[in-house]
Amino acid sequence: MPDAASSSGSLPAGFRFAGITCGIKASGKPDLALIVGDRPLVAAGVYTTNQIVAAPVTLCRQRTPSATVRGIVINSGNANACTGEAGMRDAEEMTARVAESIGCDATDVLVMSTGVIGRPLPMEVVRQGIDAAVGELASGEEAFTRAATAIMTTDAFRKTVTSAIEIDGQRYRVAAMAKGAGMIAPNMATMLAVALTDAPLAQDDLVELLRYSADRSFNRVSVDGHTSTNDSLVLLSSGDADRGALSGESLTAFRDFLCATCIELAKQLVADGEGATHVMEIRVRGAASDDDADHIARTIGESPLVKTAITGGDPNWGRIVSAAGYAGRPIDPEATSLEMMGVPLYRGGTPLPFDAAEVSGRIKQSATVVIDLVVGNGPGAATRWASDITVEYVRFNSEYTT
Amino acid sequence: MPDAASSSGSLPAGFRFAGITCGIKASGKPDLALIVGDRPLVAAGVYTTNQIVAAPVTLCRQRTPSATVRGIVINSGNANACTGEAGMRDAEEMTARVAESIGCDATDVLVMSTGVIGRPLPMEVVRQGIDAAVGELASGEEAFTRAATAIMTTDAFRKTVTSAIEIDGQRYRVAAMAKGAGMIAPNMATMLAVALTDAPLAQDDLVELLRYSADRSFNRVSVDGHTSTNDSLVLLSSGDADRGALSGESLTAFRDFLCATCIELAKQLVADGEGATHVMEIRVRGAASDDDADHIARTIGESPLVKTAITGGDPNWGRIVSAAGYAGRPIDPEATSLEMMGVPLYRGGTPLPFDAAEVSGRIKQSATVVIDLVVGNGPGAATRWASDITVEYVRFNSEYTT
Repeated sequence: MPDAASSSGSLPAGFRFAGITCGIKASGKPDLALIVGDRPLVAAGVYTTNQIVAAPVTLCRQRTPSATVRGIVINSGNANACTGEAGMRDAEEMTARVAESIGCDATDVLVMSTGVIGRPLPMEVVRQGIDAAVGELASGEEAFTRAATAIMTTDAFRKTVTSAIEIDGQRYRVAAMAKGAGMIAPNMATMLAVALTDAPLAQDDLVELLRYSADRSFNRVSVDGHTSTNDSLVLLSSGDADRGALSGESLTAFRDFLCATCIELAKQLVADGEGATHVMEIRVRGAASDDDADHIARTIGESPLVKTAITGGDPNWGRIVSAAGYAGRPIDPEATSLEMMGVPLYRGGTPLPFDAAEVSGRIKQSATVVIDLVVGNGPGAATRWASDITVEYVRFNSEYTT
Repeated sequence: MPDAASSSGSLPAGFRFAGITCGIKASGKPDLALIVGDRPLVAAGVYTTNQIVAAPVTLCRQRTPSATVRGIVINSGNANACTGEAGMRDAEEMTARVAESIGCDATDVLVMSTGVIGRPLPMEVVRQGIDAAVGELASGEEAFTRAATAIMTTDAFRKTVTSAIEIDGQRYRVAAMAKGAGMIAPNMATMLAVALTDAPLAQDDLVELLRYSADRSFNRVSVDGHTSTNDSLVLLSSGDADRGALSGESLTAFRDFLCATCIELAKQLVADGEGATHVMEIRVRGAASDDDADHIARTIGESPLVKTAITGGDPNWGRIVSAAGYAGRPIDPEATSLEMMGVPLYRGGTPLPFDAAEVSGRIKQSATVVIDLVVGNGPGAATRWASDITVEYVRFNSEYTT
């Protein structure tokens, strides 16, 4: 069972954390995080769909799902991507060193990396850093925050969510941390996220829950459409599934809770899109299928013309409707209607009269701009979140030089 | 046969042109163009794939291909899109008025519109404008230039190409005009292009040639990925196919010539992408199929991270290779290699040492940045042209307000 010390407060029981500076980053900022379970953890992962895959992703794919994971080590400042066989050896060595210190098999340790690509990991400082991190492992909010800080790269703010739910009289917690989907320099950025819970979950259920939640949260956010070589999301459970895993309605309730928590975290990633001033919440209904609705929402969210309109506070129905029209999924132009911030702008193929200054004012004052688009009479619906694009985004990404 | 006056010089014989100001644009700039054949023209069109389609596109789709087209009227300043049934009536009336003046059926006149969407055409000034344009029809370069000027919207420069080829001792001409793929305000922009030739072509061959050329030129350029409600390309031939149309090797030679001419014009569109400072020429080889290669090239050309890297003169192989990796078509990471401006940057999964300052200097000094990417050992190859993205693009598109 989880030890008493870590089961208090808002964090899930059974985890210890460390976040330290080992010297990978020239800036001297924290760059190594470690999360360790007091006992074997049930684990699943969702990884980048990019065909160019970093060494730590290859390793994690081999080691999840699992019911015997003991920990995960995460470094920032170097992505260990495009580093060939040496990169694989380095990733394996990172996990082996953690395993030796905490007393488990190397294959029960996971690893994530984020940062510059194409450069070998400075393994000397990484080794020292792992030893130091093991020595600083602690339960509690402060240690959790130190770990969440150490995975940041160009993030403007630290991204964490902690939340709890009561199911059948039992309280379960989820704590999650993520780092930047800013998709920014140097070279490219990575979305890394780790979600932890103390809910007892059978391995197959945990795999299913993670896929379900990822599809409705991290896979529904767009900053600039780039999928990095390192994108990874891992879910770890410290709950004792052998003594009775969640099932039936309890499992569904927990799934929805986990999904909502992941959406919270994913929205933080969008809000921190480099230079972003608004988060667009794009809700599409009336499509032939959920997949069609999602594809249309994605096309709208990735359109530079829509993004710049939102940046400028412009209720530009034409750019949104036309993006829906070229998304490549069937829409019914005669049954298409659009609302922004609750104001009807377009219905059945023609624009409606509206107070442009008033709607523009609402957009400018809102951190989240809600776009409701109906594309027909079908049953398909989906929601996506996307950042706008600003002069600062372009400046930041064009002024960095290799 | 074409009259003698218009068969001299670099323009194809058998066409007359007008370009005037009728008052659709508040700016007072030219906004109505007319092109008329001395005799019936063989015609084909390629139109937007957007499901939201403007009235003039619907009309042109009905009227092409054809061997009896007599002319085309084009207005700028108003796209006649999202204008419902009234918009269809207006488009029909525009062609009927031209037909009455030049003496043909209304169904033998085509129409294109570009500009603001969602607003009714100011038909009173359009009617007067058509009458005035008919009165000013003339052959020769000056009239051609006036027509090309009158179709411009936010274009920074006029886009025309005139070119000639000798096949079997006979000289044939192609003249083409286009307006902006800037995809910019107000609301959204449109790509319109008209290509004219005096080569004798059978209707089916002309349809095939236009599709072939469009697929390798206008369909291969990316500014921001938006396909407007009005995008149209029409090819008109004044050649007398009844007296012997091109066939066999002569037809193939003309096809390649037409295609090269369309590529020239398409590259002008990219170079005028709003605020663009570079044209990327993205050549992909080694894919499983040409379609895969094209899709990978397109993904690279539409990546904001790649665009901003080029803007900043950054030889950022990581962004390009990773974009290829997430394009959704198979690549072989171990057989992937990349050159920029002829300099090898990446080979077989790992970056190569190179003089970053030197390559950066070459990018900054070049209007066209050549990117050569090999993604495997397959037979598929494709080339695309895309603009970079600048602070000016975002500023222009976000500061305009409806």
